[in-house]
Amino acid sequence: MSKQLFNQIEGAAIGHSVALQDVLAELTFNADGLLPAVAQDASTRDVLMLAWMNREAIERTLAEGFACYWSRSRQAFWRKGETSGHLQALKELRFDCDGDAILLLVDQTGPACHTDRPSCFYLLADGDQVRVTSEPG
Amino acid sequence: MSKQLFNQIEGAAIGHSVALQDVLAELTFNADGLLPAVAQDASTRDVLMLAWMNREAIERTLAEGFACYWSRSRQAFWRKGETSGHLQALKELRFDCDGDAILLLVDQTGPACHTDRPSCFYLLADGDQVRVTSEPG
Repeated sequence: MSKQLFNQIEGAAIGHSVALQDVLAELTFNADGLLPAVAQDASTRDVLMLAWMNREAIERTLAEGFACYWSRSRQAFWRKGETSGHLQALKELRFDCDGDAILLLVDQTGPACHTDRPSCFYLLADGDQVRVTSEPG
Repeated sequence: MSKQLFNQIEGAAIGHSVALQDVLAELTFNADGLLPAVAQDASTRDVLMLAWMNREAIERTLAEGFACYWSRSRQAFWRKGETSGHLQALKELRFDCDGDAILLLVDQTGPACHTDRPSCFYLLADGDQVRVTSEPG
């Protein structure tokens, strides 16, 4: 992982741009070819979920305008909401400073979580307990 | 990875709680013993960064009230801001529905990114380009 490109643009001013293909070529995928991708609701600003993307999932997401992840359990592309209808329309896709994480800002249709809760992060550490903070669907 | 506990509490109502130690024992750490942890600014609601935690980093974070990650490059605990002063005071630590991701809500002192930008996610996909969206420090 050279991260040369990412190092080069660290000091770049607002508006500086580089080719998407060059960025994709320098992302630091893990041993399974995946990067963690965080989905945040563009309007409520809640963090909805964390899933995984390979290079093709990133390209599909950008081309189709809807979040498409890689399902590690099914070992297949996972267009979020394809069966549930709970699609994530893409507003923004961002890479982090060293090219090993992705942030999606999305318009979420319905609940993001498979439990029919708005967000997957409904388990709050509270002293020596972990507490459920939202009602299941 | 049994995830038994997580399956059991999927349907639980608001306020239901389980022991933190039981949750920690059932988290699905990766082969390196790590989980991705997303830090979100509790006031601006910006997603600041994504880093990694092992079980002890989670316990340190909860005990000390400041985000403590595991640095994969240095293979050491990384109290965020220990050298820069850019600490992350913990407001909330949350687990996701299937126990393989963490969300921290934090009060961020100074910039979160090592480039002195507020957030690490300053690289926006824009057509066939990737554009810098915030000024370096």
